Amino acid sequence: MSARRDEANRLAFERFAGADPVLLDVQRAGDVLPGMKPNMVLTCGAPLPWDEYSGAHRMAIIYGALYEGLGGSVEEVDAKIRSGEIVVGSTHRHGVAGAHTGIHTARTPVFVVEDRATGARGHCSLFEGDAARRLSHGSYGDEVVERLGFVERVLAPTIGEAVRRAGGIPLLPIIERALHLGDDLHLRTVASTMLFTRALMPGFLDMIGEREEDVRKTLDFLRTAEHSFVRLVLAAAKATTESARGVEGSSLVTAMAMNCNDFAIQVSGLGDEWFRASRHPTFEGKLFHEGKQPEDAGWFGTDSIIVEVVGLGGFAGACAFSLQTLQGCSAQKIVERNLAMYDISHGEHPVIKIPYLAYRGVPIGIDLFKVVETGVAPLMNGFLTKKNGGGLVGAGVLWAPIDAFKAAAAAYRKRYGE
Amino acid sequence: MSARRDEANRLAFERFAGADPVLLDVQRAGDVLPGMKPNMVLTCGAPLPWDEYSGAHRMAIIYGALYEGLGGSVEEVDAKIRSGEIVVGSTHRHGVAGAHTGIHTARTPVFVVEDRATGARGHCSLFEGDAARRLSHGSYGDEVVERLGFVERVLAPTIGEAVRRAGGIPLLPIIERALHLGDDLHLRTVASTMLFTRALMPGFLDMIGEREEDVRKTLDFLRTAEHSFVRLVLAAAKATTESARGVEGSSLVTAMAMNCNDFAIQVSGLGDEWFRASRHPTFEGKLFHEGKQPEDAGWFGTDSIIVEVVGLGGFAGACAFSLQTLQGCSAQKIVERNLAMYDISHGEHPVIKIPYLAYRGVPIGIDLFKVVETGVAPLMNGFLTKKNGGGLVGAGVLWAPIDAFKAAAAAYRKRYGE
Repeated sequence: MSARRDEANRLAFERFAGADPVLLDVQRAGDVLPGMKPNMVLTCGAPLPWDEYSGAHRMAIIYGALYEGLGGSVEEVDAKIRSGEIVVGSTHRHGVAGAHTGIHTARTPVFVVEDRATGARGHCSLFEGDAARRLSHGSYGDEVVERLGFVERVLAPTIGEAVRRAGGIPLLPIIERALHLGDDLHLRTVASTMLFTRALMPGFLDMIGEREEDVRKTLDFLRTAEHSFVRLVLAAAKATTESARGVEGSSLVTAMAMNCNDFAIQVSGLGDEWFRASRHPTFEGKLFHEGKQPEDAGWFGTDSIIVEVVGLGGFAGACAFSLQTLQGCSAQKIVERNLAMYDISHGEHPVIKIPYLAYRGVPIGIDLFKVVETGVAPLMNGFLTKKNGGGLVGAGVLWAPIDAFKAAAAAYRKRYGE
Repeated sequence: MSARRDEANRLAFERFAGADPVLLDVQRAGDVLPGMKPNMVLTCGAPLPWDEYSGAHRMAIIYGALYEGLGGSVEEVDAKIRSGEIVVGSTHRHGVAGAHTGIHTARTPVFVVEDRATGARGHCSLFEGDAARRLSHGSYGDEVVERLGFVERVLAPTIGEAVRRAGGIPLLPIIERALHLGDDLHLRTVASTMLFTRALMPGFLDMIGEREEDVRKTLDFLRTAEHSFVRLVLAAAKATTESARGVEGSSLVTAMAMNCNDFAIQVSGLGDEWFRASRHPTFEGKLFHEGKQPEDAGWFGTDSIIVEVVGLGGFAGACAFSLQTLQGCSAQKIVERNLAMYDISHGEHPVIKIPYLAYRGVPIGIDLFKVVETGVAPLMNGFLTKKNGGGLVGAGVLWAPIDAFKAAAAAYRKRYGE
């Protein structure tokens, strides 16, 4: 490795390790996302030409436009996208890491997270609950609209006001602590959702005189919707990786994402370019319904694997042995897999630690050259979904295709002449 | 083993495994403890003659009497105990498992827990916060009185009302879940305290109109006093072990407890008799202040090791790897020690499970003959204290002295002729 790359990676790593994400507010995407326009539908993954969006991913984009009122029918939205009247944009270009297909339109309420160390920001929509049918899974209908309406009318303004009353909620202490409480912060956010709720309580109590019903409904929601905090992990991860972007010469990965077609990565020293693998990750895990994998199993895409880019999820798997059942593997396997991630990471987080591994810091800062040289694929905790919509079919780990890292390595060598 | 003992242990084990502890209420000890009298001071461990209570344990009993108003000075209380005007009673005889020295007087608010399966009840006082100076550690003074006053005036009535409004709070689901969230439920009750608070929230919200200040103070307290739930584990464990008492022929242990002088156990088939070891458990762990152990380190006693009798604490250590730092040992050691407890237990709990051990049920129902035959001492997660008061000096594991089990085995053989 060149001295320049070494120095650049040291600098990028400092941004990863020094990030101090704080939840500042909950606001409409149209009001806070950089470059967001009223006619935009943002979606996850490396961008594709419109015709290449298929299945649930394509439908989620269309339903997002319908929900925003950008068109009155599927056909009309399709036509308007073709004509350029509606623009399909990239979440990552607009400061967002999106869950599932990551649909964000102007009206979408988003968590606004700022890295206090650098001022970099990240955003993500709020979890709308565990329903099988969700817009972000490519479903639509009255119940979908009603659920999103609840988020807009009740959940977002109530949480937002509590956050403002608190003067912001630091997320690092919640993230650090949640790993000691059995969360991996990707598939499991039970503890962090409780810690987050606890942090909101003083604000809720101050508001209860004026907005009792909203506070009650919000608390009821947070009590049962235990995946709520993952959206804050996404926003925090986006703020953190934004802070580590654009370090000239750095080979550290700043994004991993999927769309319905491919898996792709971005690299600190290689700007906004996406390096794609022609295939999705390899799924290893457990199907919810015994028997063979459904023929339409696959991915409709997600940005949520940015969680692993900041050393959480599969990179902190040994914090969450309770995921064994869901993921269908042993504790020993979880530990082995977690340990392997140190081989491809630049360093260890100074504060976010794994109790089981003698409080070793989580591995953070995936170095694309370490991936290529060791052949160890980054590991993500994740779900297997139905490509054509209808929800989740299994849970386990996803192994990133190494081709994306090879493509990035080639581009790096070309640009930096190594 | 005789067929009779086998059958008796099977029956006692069913009581352990089938217990369904529910928090029913918070009430004054004088109003709810069986056999409680206004002139009584209950304390932990096997009973001793008054002159044998020494150090912090003796002082805690005296301060309990002062706080109750049974005497106006240390000397007066001492004289009244000698004359029989004040009675020093055994927590375990009055349905209580007490934390630290376990002081309970008539005015002490207690959690009332009932095992729904059998109707057996257990009680325990409320945690008063993490102050270094506490009555139950043998300290007294204005701040101690103020803190206990807060428990009586605010905490107990507010929690009590929320519990009644909820129609009782089932504890088994909280206990089961907390082990998946990093609690061992003896030294660490961070997750369970949050889950308990969450279960109280609907009641708190209903009460807030009338009692806003009390609800706020109670929530503030529960947010910071993360050992709160251990008192519910004690009450639940007491209810559970009460249900398993008195099974003719059973060699399963129903209590382990300490006073300032000795460690002792009770056995299901051997009534209310205590079988004592002449020494305290062996401490293995970490001192809070580096260097050699203070000369007055020791135990002033506790009933809290009943937690291990119901398969929690050290018997579920592999749930709480975050205790490594506090206890000064490795994850591997924690696992090994936890596994050894299966060798001395009758069975495994059907619901309360350890994720790390592939969701194996916690070992439960310590069989005194297995302890004697294997030489494996029951393991307790615990603190090392100053014998003469002044708080905690270290944390780690305590190994029970096997002599107590040998004494019980001898009594068993004598009674049952095996």
